Amino acid sequence: MFRHTDHLQFQAKPEKPDPVYARKLQELIGGAFGEMTVTMQYLFQGWNCRMPGKYKDMIMDVATEEIGHVEMIATMVARLLEGAPATESTRAASADPVMAAVLGGMDPQQAIVAGGGPVLADANGMPWNGRYIVASGNLLADFRANVAAEAQGRVQTARLYNMTDDPGVRDMLRFNLARDTYHQNLWLAAIEELKADGLEGTVAPDALFDEEYTEHASQLWNLSDGTKSAEGRWAGGQAPDGVHEMAFLADPAPLGGPGVPPPPDPLLYATYDGSLGKPAKPELGTETGVVGKIKKAME
Amino acid sequence: MFRHTDHLQFQAKPEKPDPVYARKLQELIGGAFGEMTVTMQYLFQGWNCRMPGKYKDMIMDVATEEIGHVEMIATMVARLLEGAPATESTRAASADPVMAAVLGGMDPQQAIVAGGGPVLADANGMPWNGRYIVASGNLLADFRANVAAEAQGRVQTARLYNMTDDPGVRDMLRFNLARDTYHQNLWLAAIEELKADGLEGTVAPDALFDEEYTEHASQLWNLSDGTKSAEGRWAGGQAPDGVHEMAFLADPAPLGGPGVPPPPDPLLYATYDGSLGKPAKPELGTETGVVGKIKKAME
Amino acid sequence: MFRHTDHLQFQAKPEKPDPVYARKLQELIGGAFGEMTVTMQYLFQGWNCRMPGKYKDMIMDVATEEIGHVEMIATMVARLLEGAPATESTRAASADPVMAAVLGGMDPQQAIVAGGGPVLADANGMPWNGRYIVASGNLLADFRANVAAEAQGRVQTARLYNMTDDPGVRDMLRFNLARDTYHQNLWLAAIEELKADGLEGTVAPDALFDEEYTEHASQLWNLSDGTKSAEGRWAGGQAPDGVHEMAFLADPAPLGGPGVPPPPDPLLYATYDGSLGKPAKPELGTETGVVGKIKKAME
Amino acid sequence: MFRHTDHLQFQAKPEKPDPVYARKLQELIGGAFGEMTVTMQYLFQGWNCRMPGKYKDMIMDVATEEIGHVEMIATMVARLLEGAPATESTRAASADPVMAAVLGGMDPQQAIVAGGGPVLADANGMPWNGRYIVASGNLLADFRANVAAEAQGRVQTARLYNMTDDPGVRDMLRFNLARDTYHQNLWLAAIEELKADGLEGTVAPDALFDEEYTEHASQLWNLSDGTKSAEGRWAGGQAPDGVHEMAFLADPAPLGGPGVPPPPDPLLYATYDGSLGKPAKPELGTETGVVGKIKKAME
Amino acid sequence: MFRHTDHLQFQAKPEKPDPVYARKLQELIGGAFGEMTVTMQYLFQGWNCRMPGKYKDMIMDVATEEIGHVEMIATMVARLLEGAPATESTRAASADPVMAAVLGGMDPQQAIVAGGGPVLADANGMPWNGRYIVASGNLLADFRANVAAEAQGRVQTARLYNMTDDPGVRDMLRFNLARDTYHQNLWLAAIEELKADGLEGTVAPDALFDEEYTEHASQLWNLSDGTKSAEGRWAGGQAPDGVHEMAFLADPAPLGGPGVPPPPDPLLYATYDGSLGKPAKPELGTETGVVGKIKKAME
Amino acid sequence: MFRHTDHLQFQAKPEKPDPVYARKLQELIGGAFGEMTVTMQYLFQGWNCRMPGKYKDMIMDVATEEIGHVEMIATMVARLLEGAPATESTRAASADPVMAAVLGGMDPQQAIVAGGGPVLADANGMPWNGRYIVASGNLLADFRANVAAEAQGRVQTARLYNMTDDPGVRDMLRFNLARDTYHQNLWLAAIEELKADGLEGTVAPDALFDEEYTEHASQLWNLSDGTKSAEGRWAGGQAPDGVHEMAFLADPAPLGGPGVPPPPDPLLYATYDGSLGKPAKPELGTETGVVGKIKKAME
Repeated sequence: MFRHTDHLQFQAKPEKPDPVYARKLQELIGGAFGEMTVTMQYLFQGWNCRMPGKYKDMIMDVATEEIGHVEMIATMVARLLEGAPATESTRAASADPVMAAVLGGMDPQQAIVAGGGPVLADANGMPWNGRYIVASGNLLADFRANVAAEAQGRVQTARLYNMTDDPGVRDMLRFNLARDTYHQNLWLAAIEELKADGLEGTVAPDALFDEEYTEHASQLWNLSDGTKSAEGRWAGGQAPDGVHEMAFLADPAPLGGPGVPPPPDPLLYATYDGSLGKPAKPELGTETGVVGKIKKAME
Repeated sequence: MFRHTDHLQFQAKPEKPDPVYARKLQELIGGAFGEMTVTMQYLFQGWNCRMPGKYKDMIMDVATEEIGHVEMIATMVARLLEGAPATESTRAASADPVMAAVLGGMDPQQAIVAGGGPVLADANGMPWNGRYIVASGNLLADFRANVAAEAQGRVQTARLYNMTDDPGVRDMLRFNLARDTYHQNLWLAAIEELKADGLEGTVAPDALFDEEYTEHASQLWNLSDGTKSAEGRWAGGQAPDGVHEMAFLADPAPLGGPGVPPPPDPLLYATYDGSLGKPAKPELGTETGVVGKIKKAME
Repeated sequence: MFRHTDHLQFQAKPEKPDPVYARKLQELIGGAFGEMTVTMQYLFQGWNCRMPGKYKDMIMDVATEEIGHVEMIATMVARLLEGAPATESTRAASADPVMAAVLGGMDPQQAIVAGGGPVLADANGMPWNGRYIVASGNLLADFRANVAAEAQGRVQTARLYNMTDDPGVRDMLRFNLARDTYHQNLWLAAIEELKADGLEGTVAPDALFDEEYTEHASQLWNLSDGTKSAEGRWAGGQAPDGVHEMAFLADPAPLGGPGVPPPPDPLLYATYDGSLGKPAKPELGTETGVVGKIKKAME
Repeated sequence: MFRHTDHLQFQAKPEKPDPVYARKLQELIGGAFGEMTVTMQYLFQGWNCRMPGKYKDMIMDVATEEIGHVEMIATMVARLLEGAPATESTRAASADPVMAAVLGGMDPQQAIVAGGGPVLADANGMPWNGRYIVASGNLLADFRANVAAEAQGRVQTARLYNMTDDPGVRDMLRFNLARDTYHQNLWLAAIEELKADGLEGTVAPDALFDEEYTEHASQLWNLSDGTKSAEGRWAGGQAPDGVHEMAFLADPAPLGGPGVPPPPDPLLYATYDGSLGKPAKPELGTETGVVGKIKKAME
Repeated sequence: MFRHTDHLQFQAKPEKPDPVYARKLQELIGGAFGEMTVTMQYLFQGWNCRMPGKYKDMIMDVATEEIGHVEMIATMVARLLEGAPATESTRAASADPVMAAVLGGMDPQQAIVAGGGPVLADANGMPWNGRYIVASGNLLADFRANVAAEAQGRVQTARLYNMTDDPGVRDMLRFNLARDTYHQNLWLAAIEELKADGLEGTVAPDALFDEEYTEHASQLWNLSDGTKSAEGRWAGGQAPDGVHEMAFLADPAPLGGPGVPPPPDPLLYATYDGSLGKPAKPELGTETGVVGKIKKAME
Repeated sequence: MFRHTDHLQFQAKPEKPDPVYARKLQELIGGAFGEMTVTMQYLFQGWNCRMPGKYKDMIMDVATEEIGHVEMIATMVARLLEGAPATESTRAASADPVMAAVLGGMDPQQAIVAGGGPVLADANGMPWNGRYIVASGNLLADFRANVAAEAQGRVQTARLYNMTDDPGVRDMLRFNLARDTYHQNLWLAAIEELKADGLEGTVAPDALFDEEYTEHASQLWNLSDGTKSAEGRWAGGQAPDGVHEMAFLADPAPLGGPGVPPPPDPLLYATYDGSLGKPAKPELGTETGVVGKIKKAME
């Protein structure tokens, strides 16, 4: 269960409105790596964490912090939109380059749909969606996704930092940049901790190594021009997992045969000339179909 | 430019059709971490790479390999669908539990839309989309996303490996698992190489540390019950970036004031009682609006 | 079955083209509360209405009217785009602030994709989709959704009314505003009629009151700072349904235990330390799994 | 800012796992009217509320409660999935109707993607998205949307209540049904309060009545067969807003002319025979184009 | 403007309910080539048609017919769902293979969301969206899209025809198949008519032939193994447009240089080693940037 | 399997950057008919082609070419963005109309998300998705879709050609226009070849003519005002398939009865007055339900 405190985690007061920037900030609310993504990603990871204790607790700490980040940026957007043009059309723009820029650069839905506030979408108005989040239950794989999300988020925040010179906006972004730095370190530290606790290794998941084809777990397949890709750390020496030796496959040949699909079911009306032989009967489990043979075997 | 060889990178021959499994395999084609995602992610990273040479080359190698993985799994799906029920309805199911299971578990669009082949969608039929890919131009941030993608991909492949006992399917998945292992090691090695080459550090981007609020770049904000989250590596000691000291903020208080949006533009018809004072005039840049003042200052 | 008359329900003639406004009007075609939504919402409600007669007839009347509204606004958009810049690039804009505004504010797909006409998308180019519509079969719940849709639609239309001073556009919007007023009244009246006819009550659905926990059907849980939320009509006195007494729960405590998920199936490779005990066997319905016990009980 | 308590708002313990039902419950997490929608809808309404005090406070109370509802149902889903089949394929189903049903009815992504936990999607696996939420800044319009959302939510919960006989699941749903009842009453009471406070009327927004065409604000246009739609409350008498008189337009005729778009810009290559006259020059604002005339007038 | 008649265009009465088939039929309502697509595609083409007369009229005829097709199939879906299982869970399925199949194969949202009726989505529950429609204003290009849509639609209808043996369903589909046949012929005839009227040629649009590089308008680039693709009609002889000669390019070489992007703006934090030289200054139009030079040239 | 050559298929060098045009070009990357669509459409058609030989080979040739087209345009976009404004806000625009236009017209995600490169989205920032592609297995239906895609693609390219006067951009587009011309001819020729080979006819699929209602396979239903639609080739004479006679149905009447859905299951809480009789019991297959009768009949 959650509780709310009406003070913001950090101040979110622009010195001056800037409706064009208000659109850009939407990326940090509803973009693929915005605050909404990390909020829901960490909440679902926390709720799905199978170990009560330090990991689950820490994930819930950060998740709960992130809801407050959405709140901060949503408030900032509303303030950046104060006094934005709600009434004018192209005609007015012809005498005023500021208005021309603002009319062009604004998100029209912030006015028409949200009444001068934020929407739950990115800088191009595409709504946030639930496929952005990663919560697989494998903490190593998920923490790697978390490092990646915080890294992308900090790159975007850094870019946005340079797109304004408003002292109030920059004040808030200085806080956000710092949290993104901490959170990158946090998830990297948590990966170390998983190893130290003997819960995970380097490769996720730490399983099926004996099933997979080891000879294919080490080579870079050189499939583009030249061999410059042989010059990197990835083309030789011990792999980061401490187990595999890395190698370079200079001139790889396909290992499989031609990728021909089977003869089609005639009742699906795929174009066919019979060159692959007679198709299996379409009815499931009757005389000659393969699934029919399974069924018979089961009986 | 690309060229195609009609042999598959690796064999993709199921021993027997299994239309229910054919639906599950869609996750590896069109899921958020399926082969389509890594294909397009690496292609766009490669095309956007600003350094001719080993990095760009290597990225294009792997990208080109991944198109062939989509091809392998697409072929496998078509073969798993051979002889699947194209004609029967509920009535037939009442006498046949195999058909009952298959009718229920199949992806109906594989038959109706694709004529017995794969669709470009995930295991629930949701189409793949371009927001799944990550290509920011910052190679450190992108390689972290690549590790994460390969980790999630291998977790999903491992789960799918256990969901079949078909020797032919497992044969292909043993290859895929191995490539996912190599690719995780590859991107981890590439992160080491970026540091060794002096191109990036630990935190992405390696910039703006002097602008961000350092005091907020180190603390875990304890926002959920208890203090078990203080027990982890992330709550003390040197951060993985070798620069910051990590710490635990046991009882954090908000640093900002209440998140009140400004008085609304009356022509947007937000409900308002005047308690925040008189709203700025809505027209942009005229007398009293804040943006108006900017414009005047510029003049 | 439907028939079409080639006259518009109401005039849609702008005095002058305005390609920036043409983009904004897209919200009324393909936005979440645009004419397309009410068209399809009412059609599906009508087709799914289980009572031949006045309700079904009325719903189909309004649904059929709304198709004509999409037509009116689509025509208006095409006319607003007449003579819009189809050829120029940034270079031309540098000498002409009108063009600067127009180039920036236009929807590029109206030109590139639709050849100077409307698209089936909102003001940010996001396509309309079928999840916007509400047609549950419960007329009370659906009519409440209809009031809400007409209210949001009229709010948006009112905002758009202020964003133009073109007499022809305003002429059409005066008609639309009036229809939105009537339709709000219509659906409110229809809710009264449902009650008068004894078909529904105040709360949707009018069922399961004896099953739900009555003590939880009356209290506001105070989960944010302060107690100002106790001052409203919702915190005491008789509820609008005439049955419940409303109340204020000043300091609510959670009623459930910790939200711990069960021990994971090992073949799904979730990170786990055994702290929740031994996981159930993953195989469905075999010896020790819980679903297995169900099956046995059934046998 | 938010804080988290690790106890659930209400108990979420199924008596027995039921993976088929776990898929259906996804509708209450990530469906258009699931808990995620009301959570984000109320948060954005609260953050965008322009009046500190009882309304904003109450909205934040309910919003904060709803995050806890997502948590409860997410936990329930994980528990319903305990022991679900993670390994079997069609072959096994042929001997076991339970497994046949479960294999067919499960959400494959709950296993493959989430490792035996919930996803942020609906019962068909479609991800939740930000266009589901309504937060226009007009509280009357938004509260009507809130009543509608709670009504649809309670209808869906009631349906789901009948789809299980598990005492633990029903226990939780009894709580949810009760909260949905209270919340419907709450938003209806809040609409009364808005009127009592003189902030809003019956029709949203309470503006532009003098601009809209009054004669069109009262009539039902009879556009489908018969005149049964004249028999309802909406076809005569005073409207719910207490201002308009409702009426029935038995045989409506279109009020506009034919909906002909203007002659096309030749450089957009629309098919055209010249029957509408010579098209305007495509260049913006040059000699003969209409926008050109605007520009000249401005000069 | 439109009018509605309450009789269906054709009968839609299944002999018996079949809830599994009801899900499959959703493809014909809300799939990419379902009735909703052709309805909205033809409506937008008609509204955007720049020639009053036979073309516009005919497009509106077919568009108006298609709304009635959505109506027919929506009605059929509701009837197929009669008596479908609204209450049972996995437990009941264990004793009943029919229920097992039905529970697995049903669309859960038809019950939970639509109350036993159709949804505006496809067979996998993915909602219909506005990007499915094609309405470019170029009638040749659009009529080709119409032939394609009717062809895909008839292929899908034919597949669905074989998936049922219900005489009532087949009765309706016999009508739909026939209309799809007529509509394919219709759009092919309309393409002939466009040519006969001198409005369009074979290639859309019939323009810019003198601008495009003629030598590249005739050759098949052989980019995959072997030369079997040289054996087709497309590799030699006169092209269908009667103008070009077709040819086979056996061993094509790239015509461009390496695809290297320019040096990056340092404030966007792309990883970079300086190998492409010094990046242009990021500020727009100031001293050394290229856009700056344009601006100067304009001045 | 695929291989990559680092030279572009054709040169992609703009003379000057133009960030506004860079946004428009996104339509050719990630729009519904952009290069990404044809790439994936042809790949899936090729992988799903059931006839080794000239068709499959040719499809793979073109598919492989199209990946290279995505590459060309992605490179062009990065180059058009060189020196684009990465730092400025509204304030700067007030003194500079070029910047005003550019700020307004740019895609903010090209900077914030992609670091000055392309995104996998269209000109409005909507991501490309897998439902854009058509690969039904019926080659006639698919080739018709391919002609349509190339026609729409060439129309869009032609429009974009007129939106720039940059010689380098036009150089590349002259190549693209030519390939679109060839590809339209190619797919038209391939349709001829399918007929010549006796694999398909004119209508797709070439089946079920004896099942469909022939009398409905020939008439235009006149459902809109007037009879001008009788004047076209489609209203009389032999149909393009050489079999049917086309005709005009001047005053069509509905052939079906009213579209009334069945009485609702009471446990789904649809509003109902009993006018349709007693609903079937909701439990599947038990005593009185219709599906129950099927089950009994099967037994």
